[in-house]
Amino acid sequence: MPNYRLDIEYEGTDFCGWQTQKTGRSVQEEMEKVLGVLLGRETSVVGAGRTDAGVHALGQVAHFFSLRSLETDRFKNSLNGLLPKDVTIHSVAEVPDDFHARFSAISREYRYHIRTGLTAVNRHFCWVMQYPVDWKAVKDLLPLVKGSHDFHAFCSSRSSLRNRECQVHSFSLATHGNEILFHISANRFVHKMVRSLVGTMIDIGRGWLPQENLALALRTGDRRLVGQTAPAKGLFLVKVGY
Amino acid sequence: MPNYRLDIEYEGTDFCGWQTQKTGRSVQEEMEKVLGVLLGRETSVVGAGRTDAGVHALGQVAHFFSLRSLETDRFKNSLNGLLPKDVTIHSVAEVPDDFHARFSAISREYRYHIRTGLTAVNRHFCWVMQYPVDWKAVKDLLPLVKGSHDFHAFCSSRSSLRNRECQVHSFSLATHGNEILFHISANRFVHKMVRSLVGTMIDIGRGWLPQENLALALRTGDRRLVGQTAPAKGLFLVKVGY
Repeated sequence: MPNYRLDIEYEGTDFCGWQTQKTGRSVQEEMEKVLGVLLGRETSVVGAGRTDAGVHALGQVAHFFSLRSLETDRFKNSLNGLLPKDVTIHSVAEVPDDFHARFSAISREYRYHIRTGLTAVNRHFCWVMQYPVDWKAVKDLLPLVKGSHDFHAFCSSRSSLRNRECQVHSFSLATHGNEILFHISANRFVHKMVRSLVGTMIDIGRGWLPQENLALALRTGDRRLVGQTAPAKGLFLVKVGY
Repeated sequence: MPNYRLDIEYEGTDFCGWQTQKTGRSVQEEMEKVLGVLLGRETSVVGAGRTDAGVHALGQVAHFFSLRSLETDRFKNSLNGLLPKDVTIHSVAEVPDDFHARFSAISREYRYHIRTGLTAVNRHFCWVMQYPVDWKAVKDLLPLVKGSHDFHAFCSSRSSLRNRECQVHSFSLATHGNEILFHISANRFVHKMVRSLVGTMIDIGRGWLPQENLALALRTGDRRLVGQTAPAKGLFLVKVGY
């Protein structure tokens, strides 16, 4: 039974997230609906990572098994023809049997977009920041996050995950005019980790939280030390590495 | 009666354009509705340029007269509070009585966005190009458009405009990965001019039209020489100069 890898882009605005939930429209569900039609049988698709409601993906990866061998380019076009416009398949490729979108992944990259000042055109794609932030102070915090840490304090309390150790490979911040961009890469992420890190750093940068809270939260795992969770709409899953 | 200038951003996706039409939702109408509420009387607003349905604006300019003097920053916040989310006011400023958003303007700048390959996230903000284009050939055409020309061939046949002479100050093309960006500045534009220029240049770049058609259309004004009209969603009104 051949195994196929999908590279997927979606706008998260009108989704309850990647994973199928009791209510709301999920990307997984839309994918499985179309795969079911094209393959003529119920087909489940496994994603590299869940994304929350409103979070976008430029490079989500998923896999599924097919009973028959597929002509990948034609199949990609069929998928794009049937999928709703807020989901796009960039490639379909046959992969070895043991390729697993989630468990084979060795790294994930996320971007977080902030804008200073209102925007109509980008309103679904960034956090609009209407108060002053000391970006230099925020930049100074980045090295603290790099390396291996237990991200318990930055993990949603609703997560049932036991091991919250993640290795952050890189974490950077770039400013282009009124646009601020965080870029973070790690072997794995716990639930809401990027949004909680960004929100905490912003709260420090605007003077709402003491600077030492970040290092302290990483060391102690105490959730009371962290700040707000940055809005979902600024977050993009950019790439999954294998 | 003080005169006020508005700097406006909007996403054109759900608008029939800037100008109020018999049917459809216009930016002008949304502006006038909110101005009417805030000023307590019917108020008309004059825009620097009409934009068509689906065309976006980062820097549209408009003016209106108020019976009373306004506290501009507070008034801006009130406008943004009442306007729909796809319209944003970047500034409100008192201007001299003779400032006219349209007639005082001496230049306009537009950007046109193209992507090679499908996109979900940017689907409302670019023309998705799924065939090969010789971008070098397109680039070679840019200098032909610069300077003063009668743009009759590139003007919508529905336009009642008599004088179609425009002076193009600059016209450039930049590529960033799979994103292609046209940038054009002129003293004025006739109806559908940017979209008709871009569409014609793309048709030449993909070998559907002879290269000489561009210069010939500029010289003769013959509409049969020009190519397709590029889709509205890739077009952004970036700036109006005074």
